Amino acid sequence: MALDLKPLINPDSVAIIGASPNEAGHAGRCLANLERTGYPGRIYPVNPKYDSIGAHTCYPSARDLPEQVDAAYLLVPARAVESALEDCLERGIRTVTICSAGYAELGEEGAQRQRRLVERARERGVRLLGPNCIGVLNPVDTYVGCPTFNITYSYTPGSIALLSQSGGMAAALFNRAQGRSIGIRAMVSLGNEADIQMGELLDAFVADPQTEVIAVYVEQLRDAERFAAAAERARAAGKPIVLLKVGGSEAGRRTVLGHTGAMAGEQAVFSSMMHHLGVVEVATVDELLNTAYALSRLPLPAGPRLGALSPSGGECGYIADRASAHGLDMPLPTRQTLDELSERLKLALPGNPLDTTGQVIGDGDLLSEVMRIFTADPNLDMVNLGIPTWGPYDSDALLPRIIEAVKACDKPAVISAWTARDLTERAEELLRESGVCWFASSDDAMAALANVWRYAELVRRTPSAETPAPVALPRPDVDELNEHAAKRLLAEGGVPVVAETLAADTDAALRAAREIDGPLVVKLVASGITHKSELGLVRLLDSAEEAEAVLADLARTAEKENLSVEGYLVAERLSGTEIILGAVRDDTFGPVLMVGAGGILAEHFADRVFLPCPAAPEQVRAAIERLAVHPVLAGARGRHHDVDALVDAAVALSRVFAGSPWMTEVDLNPVIVGLRGQGAAAVDAVIGLAPRA
Amino acid sequence: MALDLKPLINPDSVAIIGASPNEAGHAGRCLANLERTGYPGRIYPVNPKYDSIGAHTCYPSARDLPEQVDAAYLLVPARAVESALEDCLERGIRTVTICSAGYAELGEEGAQRQRRLVERARERGVRLLGPNCIGVLNPVDTYVGCPTFNITYSYTPGSIALLSQSGGMAAALFNRAQGRSIGIRAMVSLGNEADIQMGELLDAFVADPQTEVIAVYVEQLRDAERFAAAAERARAAGKPIVLLKVGGSEAGRRTVLGHTGAMAGEQAVFSSMMHHLGVVEVATVDELLNTAYALSRLPLPAGPRLGALSPSGGECGYIADRASAHGLDMPLPTRQTLDELSERLKLALPGNPLDTTGQVIGDGDLLSEVMRIFTADPNLDMVNLGIPTWGPYDSDALLPRIIEAVKACDKPAVISAWTARDLTERAEELLRESGVCWFASSDDAMAALANVWRYAELVRRTPSAETPAPVALPRPDVDELNEHAAKRLLAEGGVPVVAETLAADTDAALRAAREIDGPLVVKLVASGITHKSELGLVRLLDSAEEAEAVLADLARTAEKENLSVEGYLVAERLSGTEIILGAVRDDTFGPVLMVGAGGILAEHFADRVFLPCPAAPEQVRAAIERLAVHPVLAGARGRHHDVDALVDAAVALSRVFAGSPWMTEVDLNPVIVGLRGQGAAAVDAVIGLAPRA
Repeated sequence: MALDLKPLINPDSVAIIGASPNEAGHAGRCLANLERTGYPGRIYPVNPKYDSIGAHTCYPSARDLPEQVDAAYLLVPARAVESALEDCLERGIRTVTICSAGYAELGEEGAQRQRRLVERARERGVRLLGPNCIGVLNPVDTYVGCPTFNITYSYTPGSIALLSQSGGMAAALFNRAQGRSIGIRAMVSLGNEADIQMGELLDAFVADPQTEVIAVYVEQLRDAERFAAAAERARAAGKPIVLLKVGGSEAGRRTVLGHTGAMAGEQAVFSSMMHHLGVVEVATVDELLNTAYALSRLPLPAGPRLGALSPSGGECGYIADRASAHGLDMPLPTRQTLDELSERLKLALPGNPLDTTGQVIGDGDLLSEVMRIFTADPNLDMVNLGIPTWGPYDSDALLPRIIEAVKACDKPAVISAWTARDLTERAEELLRESGVCWFASSDDAMAALANVWRYAELVRRTPSAETPAPVALPRPDVDELNEHAAKRLLAEGGVPVVAETLAADTDAALRAAREIDGPLVVKLVASGITHKSELGLVRLLDSAEEAEAVLADLARTAEKENLSVEGYLVAERLSGTEIILGAVRDDTFGPVLMVGAGGILAEHFADRVFLPCPAAPEQVRAAIERLAVHPVLAGARGRHHDVDALVDAAVALSRVFAGSPWMTEVDLNPVIVGLRGQGAAAVDAVIGLAPRA
Repeated sequence: MALDLKPLINPDSVAIIGASPNEAGHAGRCLANLERTGYPGRIYPVNPKYDSIGAHTCYPSARDLPEQVDAAYLLVPARAVESALEDCLERGIRTVTICSAGYAELGEEGAQRQRRLVERARERGVRLLGPNCIGVLNPVDTYVGCPTFNITYSYTPGSIALLSQSGGMAAALFNRAQGRSIGIRAMVSLGNEADIQMGELLDAFVADPQTEVIAVYVEQLRDAERFAAAAERARAAGKPIVLLKVGGSEAGRRTVLGHTGAMAGEQAVFSSMMHHLGVVEVATVDELLNTAYALSRLPLPAGPRLGALSPSGGECGYIADRASAHGLDMPLPTRQTLDELSERLKLALPGNPLDTTGQVIGDGDLLSEVMRIFTADPNLDMVNLGIPTWGPYDSDALLPRIIEAVKACDKPAVISAWTARDLTERAEELLRESGVCWFASSDDAMAALANVWRYAELVRRTPSAETPAPVALPRPDVDELNEHAAKRLLAEGGVPVVAETLAADTDAALRAAREIDGPLVVKLVASGITHKSELGLVRLLDSAEEAEAVLADLARTAEKENLSVEGYLVAERLSGTEIILGAVRDDTFGPVLMVGAGGILAEHFADRVFLPCPAAPEQVRAAIERLAVHPVLAGARGRHHDVDALVDAAVALSRVFAGSPWMTEVDLNPVIVGLRGQGAAAVDAVIGLAPRA
């Protein structure tokens, strides 16, 4: 059953458990906030110490409440929460927000107490928000269920839902948005998410008719599957999700066998998954707010072509650089537009950005005319009109013209102003009143427009293709798989691997080598060794003539290092471009496929993307196109690689990994992708095995 | 002779040529600004149309002025500038600021008129600022020589000099700085730099005792040599330079061409040169201001280790991510510090960032104690104390404690506040009054601290080593040098190249090939062809056995493509890592050496650095260490490359290029760097020849 938002963000009656007249404390602030904002519903303070608080009768326990209130806020110390919750359950309250801290955020003991709260609530069908949260702010219905005074009371209601696990950042986001007059539908702080989690709440706001855009601040996604389903519904409903995730720098390193696991840092997987789900991921607080704001105000652009105009030539240059840094194009307008502009702007060399020069200062009609011509140009998909730090004089004279031009434009159009406290007060007032989409710097404007375009691209992509079926491979009855065994197993699942011979001894290896015409590879296979090349156990030979000496040397090394030799692998040396394919089980998203560039420098640049397993060919192809190495595969220097074969290999790996839960990870490093028609094949393979039951 | 700042930024008397009582125009504004700010010097309006303007006698021409004024501002239309300048020269005025536009920014005709102005001024020993500029703002001496009302009049004097070519951005920077109460020494807008250019002005501010930090906004460096010398003096004087350059993007370059007649050099060369000169380059307006501000307020940190503290656990996570994104470390405090913190913070798990939790809200003594212990930790080089969006209540209760802690700290320490207009007014007031270094978001704080550390590292580097002498090579008497000739010439100059044979025909080539044991390379040399590999004229052979067939094939290709064959190059195939060495003559900086990673992917990532030619070995080594490919050279995967040999090769190339002006460019792509002791050698070489005199 869907989560009912009503009692959570707009209850008809509220009980404050632990209420107090002392406004220095959280409980006192919660009550004071409700009163200060003129909450029209019924307020019930609960605290055995008081008979009344202000004008309100105070009740000794939730059990004594005169009605079954919509929402209760628990603001008692952690040690008193359990019994206070029992009182609420007894009284039949169905939505309880636990602001108190002292739970899972402190470790296992706290997590246990937290689980007990949830168990009790679930037994009674009651929903919990928190613990360790600051509740709810709802400017649309002027409802403040929030135990802090550090919130702004000058509301701008709007259509952006703000969902944050962190309470401190929820307040910062809300306040900063409201300080910029960015309209907010509601802010909900989820805290430790003992019961209500991000995915479920997201779903509720996707269904909320007053919500158009959802901004998410997340530390850890605890219900990835539900989140993914909600994101899918948001996409279908045309409601953009903008998300900021923290904790990427503190990702723990897991103990892993191959490269894939080590590379699959939480953040990279997370970012790929957000892309896959059509969620716009951002890096900073202001980018989160400005992007959500732009998405709530603008139509989607048809392309990434930005037109920018400013009466300051200096700012034109600055905007061009920032637009380029954010990946936007700035093409020249059409010849006709340039000619029309040239007729009017005697001093300027018209272009894009368009420097109108000071000629327009003091000539509002000219400015209007120039803006009309420029914004209508068919080469431009969106428009930024820049204004310098204008004092009251020029603001009153010219800004209304610019606001008018933005309103008249049928493309996404914004104004970037450089705000500067006292000086620009009048300009900001005009902008706020206008209702147009505006930003306090051209940096903010460029970042937001670039993200609006990213979102437009995400939603325009082909919808997810049909997911192929998993392929189950039986677990071999061993504790460790050597390279050769791993390859043979994967080949059974349809993953292409290099043709090779496992020779039992050097003589057999030499015979195999002599059958190969051209460069070849000889490897010593020994148990318990994964990083063969670092031990010098992988040898690249130009021809079979070198094989005898090389095999003798390998045998000596094995003896010296006391290795338990399982044989010698002999294979043709493939030529092509090195790609890494891998698969890991991510803590958040489950089985994921990795596709990345091979070679040491590519590893340095972390050129890799992830997809859920199993992955469809269309998804894999789109992912490969996002790699920096893609131009190399796609024919740079005249060499078209066999991308089809690489896609097939990746899909096969994703199906096998999804169907074989006993594999903890797979690392194919490298897969050699030949030129078109030559195929792709893994030349090394590592499969991690889960402990046997 | 050094530029005299006095008449430029603090004149005793001012003439406004073209003055007007109409405040809607620039001339009227210039006069109004002087009066509005209570300029104590003597003001002389000049305009034949008026007898007086306000209380001032108005003079028909500068020739009629009753004294030889310090500074004249020309605000007449471009067509009237020349005669107005003559009047100033006649009257013996020694500093003239030309605000009028209509010069080099419009193209060659304007540039000619601009040159005439400078010629006339130089004949009379008069200095010109501009044209196309907005003059000077000087909050320290309350002098406003500026023809715009779009400037703030609520000054915060300080020690940061703001120098900008663009007038619009000069105003934006000044206003935005003052809006943030960032103290400014003076703002100077240079416009087209007809006479006074950035390097000379920079030098004057380095010598100015009231200037501590210089923030530069530049579109094109017209006097790179002078700028470099000034930067050297700034470094010696301990006065940081922070610089933002625009025009790096294609659209940006279009603007710069149109805007101030500037020709933007390649951004990558520029950035390398700034690094070389100890200049901190930044990307955005706010980063420029915040970095200059931090450098004007903080001591330099001993290292990159940041400690961050906040009462919001959510913000702690956010700061950790942002610090990491900006390249700062956040190590754990010492065991002793952790123990001391654990005793006091019962609820928190002490670490770095340190989440004090809400426990400190309402307990100022505890907060002070915790901050004292944390900031003193020896593992931390700098400190950020974060405050949430605090309203007046918590601001008054707790912020003074935090300000006190920052003041008591002997490391670079800052406060990051999340400002939010009305809500945080009281907090901002306390912060402004405190004089501590603070920022309006933790993003701004992290960016600024990271740049302060970058500057500390730049100045700590070994001072420039002795520059080696150029090596002059005679120009061969040809119109084009083939690969072999280019290599032999460079070898004469000490640049290591691969040993190779130029064989006249396929028979000779075959004999040469058979003398090589192991893999080899055969190339067809033909005139007029530089991209040999794209035509298939470079062949990699595993052994000499393949040579006969390959040579026959090359000969066929030559015939088919109708190439004029100059011979066949036969060489051993070197193994090692591919590096690109090159040299070009940069429009701004002259001869520069390039060192970069080779291979197609590295080119994609533009992994390269530049140095002036000739370059000293220490400089080359430091530059190589900044490459992404450096770990590969330095022994990743256990392979230590011959970096010494690469350094020698680069130094040799830089000396040859500096000494041989007839070379327009050199491209050694690739240089193969072998393992330690194996040397480095160019296996391909192209030398561009200047047209013969």
